[in-house]
Amino acid sequence: MRRPSRSRSLQNLGEFGLIREIRNRFGKVGRSIIKGIGDDAAVIRPTPGSTLLVSTDLFIEGIHFHLGFQSLFDVGYRATASNLSDIAAMGGCPQYLLVALAIPDHLSLSGIRKLYRGLMHPCQSHGVKLIGGDTSLSQSGIFVSLTILGRGQSGHEMKREGAKVGDLVYVTGTLGDSRAGLHILQTRYQQSRGQRKKPYEQFLIKRHLRPTPRIHLGRLLAKQRLAKAAIDLSDGLSGDLRHLCEESKVGVELWAKAIPLSSQFRAYAAQERLDSLQLALMGGEDYELLFTISPRNQNALRHASKALDLPITCIGEVKAKGFGIRLKLEDGLYRQIPIQSYDHFRQQQAL
Amino acid sequence: MRRPSRSRSLQNLGEFGLIREIRNRFGKVGRSIIKGIGDDAAVIRPTPGSTLLVSTDLFIEGIHFHLGFQSLFDVGYRATASNLSDIAAMGGCPQYLLVALAIPDHLSLSGIRKLYRGLMHPCQSHGVKLIGGDTSLSQSGIFVSLTILGRGQSGHEMKREGAKVGDLVYVTGTLGDSRAGLHILQTRYQQSRGQRKKPYEQFLIKRHLRPTPRIHLGRLLAKQRLAKAAIDLSDGLSGDLRHLCEESKVGVELWAKAIPLSSQFRAYAAQERLDSLQLALMGGEDYELLFTISPRNQNALRHASKALDLPITCIGEVKAKGFGIRLKLEDGLYRQIPIQSYDHFRQQQAL
Repeated sequence: MRRPSRSRSLQNLGEFGLIREIRNRFGKVGRSIIKGIGDDAAVIRPTPGSTLLVSTDLFIEGIHFHLGFQSLFDVGYRATASNLSDIAAMGGCPQYLLVALAIPDHLSLSGIRKLYRGLMHPCQSHGVKLIGGDTSLSQSGIFVSLTILGRGQSGHEMKREGAKVGDLVYVTGTLGDSRAGLHILQTRYQQSRGQRKKPYEQFLIKRHLRPTPRIHLGRLLAKQRLAKAAIDLSDGLSGDLRHLCEESKVGVELWAKAIPLSSQFRAYAAQERLDSLQLALMGGEDYELLFTISPRNQNALRHASKALDLPITCIGEVKAKGFGIRLKLEDGLYRQIPIQSYDHFRQQQAL
Repeated sequence: MRRPSRSRSLQNLGEFGLIREIRNRFGKVGRSIIKGIGDDAAVIRPTPGSTLLVSTDLFIEGIHFHLGFQSLFDVGYRATASNLSDIAAMGGCPQYLLVALAIPDHLSLSGIRKLYRGLMHPCQSHGVKLIGGDTSLSQSGIFVSLTILGRGQSGHEMKREGAKVGDLVYVTGTLGDSRAGLHILQTRYQQSRGQRKKPYEQFLIKRHLRPTPRIHLGRLLAKQRLAKAAIDLSDGLSGDLRHLCEESKVGVELWAKAIPLSSQFRAYAAQERLDSLQLALMGGEDYELLFTISPRNQNALRHASKALDLPITCIGEVKAKGFGIRLKLEDGLYRQIPIQSYDHFRQQQAL
């Protein structure tokens, strides 16, 4: 994907030329944007009566992504999708993006354009506007820092706290797909690259490279006040469930047989002789929503799932804090869940 | 400043432990912060009737700073001061900070704490609260990305556009000090480090390491609608003046003898046999404000300068675009100004 640029076009264009190009291409201002790219700060007119949601995320070459098996477009796409997912988890409507980008000087101008196209792709379908950023040379790899701003409905924002004993635990989509897709990409890269991919592999790779932030469901859950607590699955079910339990000061009984797995994921786990349940519990970057609701809202949730054509599955029940987080197996026995979030400063357990 | 940590304390604390520590120490929520650090996004209650100002800035080891001659506290301090200065240039009131930070694993926990203390120091004197961020391992050096949010008075925000022919051009403080201070630090580092510093050197180094964002003046200029156009001096007078002229579609006649230079800066330039004027035009990172006002507002500006005990100097006049940007020398002759902004993707001219 990456090659030393033969033309020194980024050097010719310069930092301010690059900013001008990005501004012309993506920096269109909207009604609520008083000043976008091109000043010391962006100036925004907040929506009256709404709250402001803000989240920032880092994406670093060699840590969060590797260009050996994904394109610059892929890198951009996943970065923004993940950042948008934070707003989805709060039940908000994403509105504005700021992109701080450090790039090594061997990166070609067309590479930078691909990265920006990737960054802006998930934004465009949600009407999110680019309002600012910063650019710099990097002496090592690519470094992307995104800040997303959105609006929340006052008093309706979903937080990690708020889950109550007796609530039901739900999750959207299927789990573990993204981690499996990443693993396929990684091993393909290490082995022969031209090898034809099996259909289930193609599906899982797509789930890794093109995650879908659950914006519409998040907004609906917040608007109708269905969810008591919510989080997006970036670190993996076991880790993110722990975050939710810690903030809500509760425990959870998770039902092993209920955890939604795609047929493609099952096929992959069988082929690789991996424990599919373990993989689904630990696999991060699915960007599905995990939330709790009161049992009386199950019907309303079923309607939402149907209206949005999005599978939503009940996977457990909120218990008192002392219960901890336990997995109920099909034989009725309990297992302590190995809690494993991706922690940048600790040694990770290999897949 | 930096040494391999003997204890593996960051690894012991882990990413989530570090976030918890930062949250406990700096993440105190205020009245307008519905949710700060510790959720998928921060939730803020915007000030009714105000606009929202947002700016993001990158600070990369080896590019924006070098730990050979500045401490981690210094790095943090300068980063936030520069980010706050963007809000000052818009005439806004800074309110919230998000810190995205990538750190190499050899950085000690006490080093990270120093960096955060530096980051938060300029915030505390302006009541700016830390509301979120992200942390990651870095495979190379330290990488800081800051996002500052502030409020503007609707319709009073100062932009780079808006300067009109006949306006007077003003600047706060003295110019070139920071660049000279940096140069002293750099050469000290290369030469003997223990050498006793002359008093003017101490002054210039302090001007580099502890820049003062001109928040109070910015707010006053905006509130009273004194300034037509404004920018902060991060790239250097010649470069930032060009940005202002481009956005306002005007030219400027700059008066050489009026450009404010500190006596310490003059002493330094004389000692080093450097062209002080050239140095002041090109020297970046002063974080002073550059702005234009209508001549009828000179008196009001004089009052503001006195009230804030901040020297403000008239350095030129706005001309039509065709005039370009010219420097009027003491002999009455004009010189084209060598326009030189710091451009990350182009070769820089050496000091």
